[in-house]
Amino acid sequence: MSLARLAEDRVDHRFKGLPPDADGLSVAELTAQRRNLFTGGFTTPVLALSAERLEHNLALMETYAARHGLAFAPHGKTTMAPQLFRRQIEHGAWGITLAVPHQVRVARDFGIERIFLANELVDPAALKWIAGRLDTDPAFRFICYVDSVRGVELMDAALQGAARPLDVVVELAAGEGARTGVRTEAECAAVADAVAATGTLRLVGVAGYEGEVPGADPQRVHTWLRRLVALAADFDKAGRFTAAGPDEIVISAGGSAWFDAVADVFAEIPELSRPVLKLLRSGAYVSHDDGHYRKVTPFNRIPEEGALEPAFRLWTQVVSRPSPDQAFTNGGKRDAAYDLDLPVPLVVRRGDSERPATGIEVTALSDQHAWLRTAPGADLEVGDWLGLGLSHPCTSFDKWQLIPVAQADGTVVEYIRTFF
Amino acid sequence: MSLARLAEDRVDHRFKGLPPDADGLSVAELTAQRRNLFTGGFTTPVLALSAERLEHNLALMETYAARHGLAFAPHGKTTMAPQLFRRQIEHGAWGITLAVPHQVRVARDFGIERIFLANELVDPAALKWIAGRLDTDPAFRFICYVDSVRGVELMDAALQGAARPLDVVVELAAGEGARTGVRTEAECAAVADAVAATGTLRLVGVAGYEGEVPGADPQRVHTWLRRLVALAADFDKAGRFTAAGPDEIVISAGGSAWFDAVADVFAEIPELSRPVLKLLRSGAYVSHDDGHYRKVTPFNRIPEEGALEPAFRLWTQVVSRPSPDQAFTNGGKRDAAYDLDLPVPLVVRRGDSERPATGIEVTALSDQHAWLRTAPGADLEVGDWLGLGLSHPCTSFDKWQLIPVAQADGTVVEYIRTFF
Repeated sequence: MSLARLAEDRVDHRFKGLPPDADGLSVAELTAQRRNLFTGGFTTPVLALSAERLEHNLALMETYAARHGLAFAPHGKTTMAPQLFRRQIEHGAWGITLAVPHQVRVARDFGIERIFLANELVDPAALKWIAGRLDTDPAFRFICYVDSVRGVELMDAALQGAARPLDVVVELAAGEGARTGVRTEAECAAVADAVAATGTLRLVGVAGYEGEVPGADPQRVHTWLRRLVALAADFDKAGRFTAAGPDEIVISAGGSAWFDAVADVFAEIPELSRPVLKLLRSGAYVSHDDGHYRKVTPFNRIPEEGALEPAFRLWTQVVSRPSPDQAFTNGGKRDAAYDLDLPVPLVVRRGDSERPATGIEVTALSDQHAWLRTAPGADLEVGDWLGLGLSHPCTSFDKWQLIPVAQADGTVVEYIRTFF
Repeated sequence: MSLARLAEDRVDHRFKGLPPDADGLSVAELTAQRRNLFTGGFTTPVLALSAERLEHNLALMETYAARHGLAFAPHGKTTMAPQLFRRQIEHGAWGITLAVPHQVRVARDFGIERIFLANELVDPAALKWIAGRLDTDPAFRFICYVDSVRGVELMDAALQGAARPLDVVVELAAGEGARTGVRTEAECAAVADAVAATGTLRLVGVAGYEGEVPGADPQRVHTWLRRLVALAADFDKAGRFTAAGPDEIVISAGGSAWFDAVADVFAEIPELSRPVLKLLRSGAYVSHDDGHYRKVTPFNRIPEEGALEPAFRLWTQVVSRPSPDQAFTNGGKRDAAYDLDLPVPLVVRRGDSERPATGIEVTALSDQHAWLRTAPGADLEVGDWLGLGLSHPCTSFDKWQLIPVAQADGTVVEYIRTFF
C-alpha cells in the first residue's frame, strides 16, 4: 500500500465530519477542491489540524534532534498516520517507534523501513509475521524490547527457523513500581545472558522510558537516564555487544515531557566499542496540545530552543441552550480526548466572525455531547460553532479516521488518514 | 452499500487483532475458515464478542419490548455496526436511534429505513443532506428533536425548498441542570408554536431521556416520565398534532438503566387522538457489560423478566512481569473502555487451559498497556492471555473496527464491522 493509494480512496460514511456532498469523490479530488472548513459543507463535529502549526512542529523537532545529536524515531502510536510518518522521515527521522504489532503492520504496509517497537513482544503469531518480513526485506530494520528471561524464551521458541536474528534491547525500568522493564542491573544481565543463549535474538542496546520515573522531576529523571547510560557502558565493557555484534549500539529514551533531560544525558555518553545510536522517541509533538503537553513540554524549560504549537481544533456546534448558564454542543467522548483533561473552549464562530470563547467552560462530556457552563453575559447561541482545544494527542487522533488539515484562512489542503 | 459488500471487504492493516496471515482474504473467506480465536493466529490485543450472548441479548430485548407493547429503536450509537442494526431490525425493532448526522449517513447507506435522531440538529449541510434523502426515498422515515425556537428557525432556513416536511419531536429536559431539552411546559409550547409556524417541519410527538433525571431513582424517574406523557396529552388536546397531522403520535424515552420505568409509565398512556408510537431507545443491551450496565440494568429489579449477559471479552497478553506484585498486558486506552470503570480481569489462558483470574486487578491503563496488581501467589506469567471484562459498551465498540464473534469453544463465526 502506498500513500498514493490513500489519495485514491473514496470519501464515504466511514469518515465523519466530511461534507455529505463530497460522497463518492476520491480524497485527491476533494483535496483539489480546496474547500473551506467553515463554508465548504463540513458537518460538526469535525476535528481539524492546522497546516502551518503541523509544519512548524515537524520542523522544530527535526532541528531539536539535529542540534543535540540525537537520532529520532517519533512514536507513531500517537498519530498512526502513514502520511505523517512519511513527513517525519522527510524531516530527518531515523524511523518510527511503535507500541504493538498491529501498528507495525500499518507502518510496514506503508513502507517504513526502520521500526523501533518500544514494548515487549512475545506473541508467536506476531513474531512469525515480523520474522517473515525481515526475511523477505533485507532493508527492514526492526528492534524491540526484552525485560524477562521468560519473554526471551517465548520469543526464541516462536522464531525458530527465522533466517535473520531479531534485534532486541534490554528495557531498564524507570524505578520500583514503574511500568514495564527490568528492575535491577543484575536482572538486566540475566536477561542479556538469556538473549545471548538464543540463536534467534541479537542484543543491540538498552532502552527505557523516563516518563515513568516515580515522582519525576529534573533531578530524578537525569539520575535514571545516567543509570541507563551506565548500563549500556557496563554491557559494552562486558562484551555483550561483540558476539554477532551489531554495527552500532542503541541507547533509547525520551517521551514528550523530558527530552531536554535525554539530550543532556545522552550528550555525556562515553565512547563505547561501537558508534552509538542515541534514539529519541517523542511522539506528541506533531499536534502538541492545549492541555497536558502544553504544561509538561520541555520547551517550557528551554524557551530559547523554540516552542511547539497546538495544532488541533475540534469544531462542534451548539445544539441546545436550555438555560442561561448551560449549553450543549454535539461533540462528546466519541470526538474529543477526555482521559487527561476536558476540552477547552477557544473560539466561537457565528457566520464569518470568530471571537474568543470568553466565559465558556466544558464541565463534562457525554458520549455525543459536551456540557458547557456559561458565565453571565457569555454570548453563545444555538447554531454557533465552538472551537475546542484538546488535551492528549494520542486520544485525539484515535477518534478520527480522516482529518482535514486547514490553513489559517480555513482552506483545507490535505486529509490525514489514521489507522487505529 | 449492502451488508454483502462488507463481506467482500479485504482483511488488512485497518483491522487490529486479526491474524496477520489472513491479510488479503475477504471477510467472507476468513469467516468461512472458522478459525479459533485462541489458536487461529489472532494477535493481542483483540476484542471478541460472544456469539451466544449476543443472540441471547438481542432476543431478550425483543421479547421485553413486545411484552410491554413498546416499539423499539435501539440506540445505534452504541455499536455503529450495520450488521447489528440489521439483526436488531430482524428482532423486531421499529428502526434505529442515532445521535449525530454522521451516524445517520452510516445507517442510511446500509438501508435503515426508520431513523430516530435523539438529538437536536441545526447544521445546514446535514439538514440539506437529510432533506435530499427524504425527497428521493419515500420509505425513509426520519424524526429528530427540537428544544429551542432558535433551533427551529435555523432548521427552517436550512430546509427551504424541501419537498417533504421533516418530522420533529419536542425534547422535554429531564430536569433543571440536566442535559438538552426544554426546561418547562410553557417553553415546550413556544417551541411547538415555532414548529407550527414553519412550512418545513412537522410536530409528531415528544421525547426525552430519563437517564439524566437529577438524582435519578425509581420515583423521580417515574415522575418525570409521567410529565412527558402529560405533555404529549396536553399537546394532543391543544390540537398540536392535527394540522398536517401525522398518522401517529410519537412518545419516546428509555436508555439502558430505566426501561422498566418507561414500560410502567408508557402502559398508562391515555387514549389520544391518534395511535401512539411508544418508542424505547435502549442501546447498551446488545453487548451489555461487566461493569456499569451490569450494575444499573433494570433486570436487576425485574429478574423474572430475564437477564442480559456480558458479551464482550478483551483478550490481552502479559508482556511484562517485572515484580511479584506487578504485571503488564498489551491492551490499554486504545483497546478498552476506561471512562466509567477500569477493565476487570476475568480469566487467564495458558496454552489450552483457562482458569479464573483470581488475585489479579487492573489498577490503571496507559495508551497501550494495562497495569495489573497481583496478589501473593497469583499465577500469572509472561505470555499468558488475560481476558478482561469491560464497562460501557459505547466506548468499547468505538475502539474496534472489525470484531470477531466467537462461539463458546472459540470458533469465530462472524466479524462485525463498525463505523465510528
